[in-house]
Amino acid sequence: EDLSLGDITTEGLVSPELSGRASFVVKAPGVLAGMEVALRVCHRADPSLQGQALVADGSPVAPGTVVGEVWGPVAGILRAERAALNLLTRMSGIATDTARYVEALKGLPCAVLDTRKTAPGLRLLDKYAVRMGGGRNHRFHLGDGVLVKDNHWEALREAGLTLAQGLERLRGRIHHLIKVQVEAKDMAEVKEAVEAGAEALLLDNMSPEEMAAVVREVAGRLPLEASGGITLETARQAAQSGVDFISIGALTHSPRALDISLELEYRP
Amino acid sequence: EDLSLGDITTEGLVSPELSGRASFVVKAPGVLAGMEVALRVCHRADPSLQGQALVADGSPVAPGTVVGEVWGPVAGILRAERAALNLLTRMSGIATDTARYVEALKGLPCAVLDTRKTAPGLRLLDKYAVRMGGGRNHRFHLGDGVLVKDNHWEALREAGLTLAQGLERLRGRIHHLIKVQVEAKDMAEVKEAVEAGAEALLLDNMSPEEMAAVVREVAGRLPLEASGGITLETARQAAQSGVDFISIGALTHSPRALDISLELEYRP
Amino acid sequence: EDLSLGDITTEGLVSPELSGRASFVVKAPGVLAGMEVALRVCHRADPSLQGQALVADGSPVAPGTVVGEVWGPVAGILRAERAALNLLTRMSGIATDTARYVEALKGLPCAVLDTRKTAPGLRLLDKYAVRMGGGRNHRFHLGDGVLVKDNHWEALREAGLTLAQGLERLRGRIHHLIKVQVEAKDMAEVKEAVEAGAEALLLDNMSPEEMAAVVREVAGRLPLEASGGITLETARQAAQSGVDFISIGALTHSPRALDISLELEYRP
Amino acid sequence: EDLSLGDITTEGLVSPELSGRASFVVKAPGVLAGMEVALRVCHRADPSLQGQALVADGSPVAPGTVVGEVWGPVAGILRAERAALNLLTRMSGIATDTARYVEALKGLPCAVLDTRKTAPGLRLLDKYAVRMGGGRNHRFHLGDGVLVKDNHWEALREAGLTLAQGLERLRGRIHHLIKVQVEAKDMAEVKEAVEAGAEALLLDNMSPEEMAAVVREVAGRLPLEASGGITLETARQAAQSGVDFISIGALTHSPRALDISLELEYRP
Amino acid sequence: EDLSLGDITTEGLVSPELSGRASFVVKAPGVLAGMEVALRVCHRADPSLQGQALVADGSPVAPGTVVGEVWGPVAGILRAERAALNLLTRMSGIATDTARYVEALKGLPCAVLDTRKTAPGLRLLDKYAVRMGGGRNHRFHLGDGVLVKDNHWEALREAGLTLAQGLERLRGRIHHLIKVQVEAKDMAEVKEAVEAGAEALLLDNMSPEEMAAVVREVAGRLPLEASGGITLETARQAAQSGVDFISIGALTHSPRALDISLELEYRP
Amino acid sequence: EDLSLGDITTEGLVSPELSGRASFVVKAPGVLAGMEVALRVCHRADPSLQGQALVADGSPVAPGTVVGEVWGPVAGILRAERAALNLLTRMSGIATDTARYVEALKGLPCAVLDTRKTAPGLRLLDKYAVRMGGGRNHRFHLGDGVLVKDNHWEALREAGLTLAQGLERLRGRIHHLIKVQVEAKDMAEVKEAVEAGAEALLLDNMSPEEMAAVVREVAGRLPLEASGGITLETARQAAQSGVDFISIGALTHSPRALDISLELEYRP
Repeated sequence: EDLSLGDITTEGLVSPELSGRASFVVKAPGVLAGMEVALRVCHRADPSLQGQALVADGSPVAPGTVVGEVWGPVAGILRAERAALNLLTRMSGIATDTARYVEALKGLPCAVLDTRKTAPGLRLLDKYAVRMGGGRNHRFHLGDGVLVKDNHWEALREAGLTLAQGLERLRGRIHHLIKVQVEAKDMAEVKEAVEAGAEALLLDNMSPEEMAAVVREVAGRLPLEASGGITLETARQAAQSGVDFISIGALTHSPRALDISLELEYRP
Repeated sequence: EDLSLGDITTEGLVSPELSGRASFVVKAPGVLAGMEVALRVCHRADPSLQGQALVADGSPVAPGTVVGEVWGPVAGILRAERAALNLLTRMSGIATDTARYVEALKGLPCAVLDTRKTAPGLRLLDKYAVRMGGGRNHRFHLGDGVLVKDNHWEALREAGLTLAQGLERLRGRIHHLIKVQVEAKDMAEVKEAVEAGAEALLLDNMSPEEMAAVVREVAGRLPLEASGGITLETARQAAQSGVDFISIGALTHSPRALDISLELEYRP
Repeated sequence: EDLSLGDITTEGLVSPELSGRASFVVKAPGVLAGMEVALRVCHRADPSLQGQALVADGSPVAPGTVVGEVWGPVAGILRAERAALNLLTRMSGIATDTARYVEALKGLPCAVLDTRKTAPGLRLLDKYAVRMGGGRNHRFHLGDGVLVKDNHWEALREAGLTLAQGLERLRGRIHHLIKVQVEAKDMAEVKEAVEAGAEALLLDNMSPEEMAAVVREVAGRLPLEASGGITLETARQAAQSGVDFISIGALTHSPRALDISLELEYRP
Repeated sequence: EDLSLGDITTEGLVSPELSGRASFVVKAPGVLAGMEVALRVCHRADPSLQGQALVADGSPVAPGTVVGEVWGPVAGILRAERAALNLLTRMSGIATDTARYVEALKGLPCAVLDTRKTAPGLRLLDKYAVRMGGGRNHRFHLGDGVLVKDNHWEALREAGLTLAQGLERLRGRIHHLIKVQVEAKDMAEVKEAVEAGAEALLLDNMSPEEMAAVVREVAGRLPLEASGGITLETARQAAQSGVDFISIGALTHSPRALDISLELEYRP
Repeated sequence: EDLSLGDITTEGLVSPELSGRASFVVKAPGVLAGMEVALRVCHRADPSLQGQALVADGSPVAPGTVVGEVWGPVAGILRAERAALNLLTRMSGIATDTARYVEALKGLPCAVLDTRKTAPGLRLLDKYAVRMGGGRNHRFHLGDGVLVKDNHWEALREAGLTLAQGLERLRGRIHHLIKVQVEAKDMAEVKEAVEAGAEALLLDNMSPEEMAAVVREVAGRLPLEASGGITLETARQAAQSGVDFISIGALTHSPRALDISLELEYRP
Repeated sequence: EDLSLGDITTEGLVSPELSGRASFVVKAPGVLAGMEVALRVCHRADPSLQGQALVADGSPVAPGTVVGEVWGPVAGILRAERAALNLLTRMSGIATDTARYVEALKGLPCAVLDTRKTAPGLRLLDKYAVRMGGGRNHRFHLGDGVLVKDNHWEALREAGLTLAQGLERLRGRIHHLIKVQVEAKDMAEVKEAVEAGAEALLLDNMSPEEMAAVVREVAGRLPLEASGGITLETARQAAQSGVDFISIGALTHSPRALDISLELEYRP
């Protein structure tokens, strides 16, 4: 979208023969993600650009660190700059935020999950960034995992079916390697879901005490995920209830870009 | 990306005959943007869904406000839900942040501008959201406006050309209705740019005092834009220097989603 | 691909005003699949065509049955005919073959599975047809399920890793609702896979006796799938070993089209 | 479609550094087709894969023959395996079936033709495979050849036009290098078609005796094609009537995949 | 390409509620072509626009004639105007030029043909316009017709093959309803081509006398096309030689747009 | 569009091993444009083709000049020939026509502009060719420039708004580097436009005398463009009125292809 009609400033001012080298420099502490993707964007904006990652995705980075380089025609570097930085700063921002949650859970047997609350068109990159920050992924789209939500329960009731009947019908349509996760908002729903054959539970907006009770009830038989309104401040307490996962929508719906800039030098 | 393989949960559990109606309900104060776009997403996910905006984009909204409705097959509503909300909450978040800056400049003849620091693939929507929040747009891509940056000056110097010579060459290649904006970081560059025929200036990372001096020097002959490191706290002071525009990258590179949810009812 | 340059015969001979009605007539016994898809193809070839399924996908059909109708401009019907029939006869052929396997397993707690051996570009339709014939689906693509094959074991050994170490690494990268299936060709591999934490097994080319031994060993702890060289003649014997699934590549790699034709009448 | 979300098994288990070499090994006698296409699929799945055909398309192959090789990252080979084999086994199956028909007609001046009854999206590859088996192609789509069928005759009659009038109108719309073929189901239609200026005939479901009579009547003035219900058993008898072509829908609508597998070795 | 970023003038100035009606008015004598296509462009630019052709493609039109109308939102009409007129004026220009050639050949049994010298991307529309002007089409692309040119003869000679051998090889690869046309520049090549089995001839840059000699030699056995440097002035003389077709590259490579404008009224 | 089904003539007759070299030879005097584009078309038709421009775009060329070469497989050259020449001859034709207008204005401070009357799909190439002929470009599409036409004035009046009010509304929606051009057909409109804040004027169908009066009135305050019915014969007189630009639709709506052919030799 940045180049649909070319870069008229650069085409008018910068000779296609002029070569240079540019460094991606981190300006704030964080976790790097998207360096390879950014280099691929550069290469696509101008196939004669070459580049190299100097720091691996997933690494913590300090201000001043040069995390990658790109070299070739200056005009190509200027054309690619904004698109590459927009991806790199967003993805590193997501990884940095994720790492803060992972840090908050340190020592507990509980992983940080993302959600499908991602920027339209960027889901794969957003979820990759979460992994780079030490988190794990929830399902990628509506077709590679099953999550039975309150609205689905509701629809079953409207149709006069029990949850168990619904899950049986559902299993005839999905492939046989998918676990069925069911959302439950209280202990009664937890029990009904377990009896109906759920293979994982999502605990929706429960208090740490309620979640601890579910953990005792379920006793390791199936994985438990806490979801809803968890912040960096409340994450550790939620995890101490004994759940296996907490999921955090803000990781991807409200990311804060990590400040990274591209500094250009003319080749000596 | 959400529906490439369908919504296997909903297909297995929800009868295609079941109809319902769902409301988009705002959960936090802000400015609405993207309601029509969200309804179009719903319609595309399931063409038998119909919808209606109840509040116009650009309106301030209070928690609890129902801003739109969608009705039709429940299965279709569930399929469309996440994609529609991801857009609507992002766009409303951007409009809300923009409106805070506009509020901060109240009474001053200075507009809030966005930048090209947008999420890849979402530029048109991000920039629309800025307008809904009361801001104005900077150029949309590298091909519909000219901004001569420090790296372009540098490249001209490498080629032994003055800025004036560069701008003349540039004008032969662009269409005749585009204004040439030049970035300047101090008074010397401001003067050189004005003499070389710049039609607008971007003042890069100047202090309010430096900007005020530029305003006195240029005396209304061409529009001035302040850029670089301006926050909600410093925006008013920057604008008081007399510049015509301040541009804020964080509006689109670090948006905070506005909390909006979709509440489903079964048709009586 | 049939219409990239139009239908020059029909355009030259058939007036666009001439209307008609055509029936999809089954010519051989089988199971119907693809009727709705075929009507959609008609509608896309000529949006003024309307149609109606008279028999639901998944139904057994006898020769002479009219399974659907389409009406509108005769020129449109002729244009759409071949593309619609190519899909309908292929999908019904797959459903018919699948139903034969399902019939062969009648009374046994063992389901028929497909594979990824589908015609390029047609996977979703092929797998839908298998479901219509009473079968169940294996994973849809390499990204929505995990199957650790002999070549993956081999690669782990090359890297000096045990299967258990491999599966642990793998789980950090996949989403948390996917079951890990492991291929095993003898009892030793079965035991190693179970200990390493496999959640399902694929028994590769084992004899019914070997499979029965695995069934006794595993004792219902995880689902078992028999694969490799199973034909309509040997399917029942394989299933009697107690496995939960048998998978059949020929369902989709060597389908036999069900004979269905489109018979056109001019509207009275 | 196989890789839209990557190959999560391989990505989790196989190091991107591990290299290997794999052989395409034929497991049943037949005729090879699609080797180059399969290698291109490999290259596209992973551009760092290289490959080589060891046997030319169109050659008869015996079980055990290595017909091609591919080498490079093991992860890439595993990713490409299924897509490459799905094409290669289908295309070789079509070539093998075609060759059986060609063999059945040995010594007779009659060629084997395909039809447009191909798998959706695969027409060019299916028709290429027919040529590799020694057959010839009928038209590729509705826009590069003219075949006036019974339904077109019917439409002309509805419009009060003779076949001769219809063909004249038709010729004004098509380009001047296309022969007009007309379908005829009995001698009366054959005569009408010849008089109306047909340049080729398709004899629909005629007996060998009827076809022989047509051959005597037409006496080499225009090419004759026999079509409808011809099997491997009846093909030679049909051809002995003296027709120039027989067309066989089953070649492409009910192909039987040729068994070919990909055997992987780790590089020493 | 006209609307990739919207129509910023119209969006800023014209209320989406304002309705109007616009007429396509011809300003110079000619032949109309593209009216339906232009209306479809309008509908695509704004789906709420409706339109109607008042004159059929292929009709001669006088200055002042209203050939079509479009009505709906004024903003939509303004958005669509240029794209619709660019197509309509080009296509009508081509039809007008073609009609001049057809007129020049009046009374002679010789048709006007186009070539593949069309504007990139517009071939189907250009060739349709030629038909509307009374001309006929040559092949549409390199895949739906065979024309053996001097460079192909040359390549055969390099490979040590005669033309007859070449044509035999060629026939094994093309479908059986395509006529093989051969280019010949003198009588010797004409004779060689006829003996080798050519089914049509293209006479390249021959004088009317040479063409008349070829007509006598070939005596109606196969169609003859004259090509190369024929202008409106020389066309009739060329056709009087007795050839069946003359082909004119300038029809489509140097079309002169017919002056047509769109006149807008506001609905009363 | 030329190769969607391959080049069946060349594939049947020309060995893929045969190599050659071909020259692009100009046959009439003109200005070259599109040489690099034509070579890229060749490379895309067959990636093993290589090529070289011998004359730079924008250069005047005499008959007989070899302006570029391409070498590699003869089959590839034949496949690419028509598509490459269609672009090159059109673009050079546009450049040649533009250069004639530029020549006609020699010595006057007035530039030649193009319009949006380009062949659908070819706008960027058409406008590039105008630049190569010495002209300048008007806006590229409806989204990168503002031109307020009579119909927009009309729509404002319908809405009860003055032009000044309209332009103010408009400025809130466009980015801040775009000049607003207003069309005016007489002195009254010129004055109203200037007062309303127009930043450029388009003088629609005015006589040279009227234009001279406008030049005197406006006195260098904003750029003036003459438009409507200007031909090569009247261009100089129009420019002598003192306007800054004249725009010529015929440059791109009725281009005359420059005669250029591709001459093939077999490699020694």
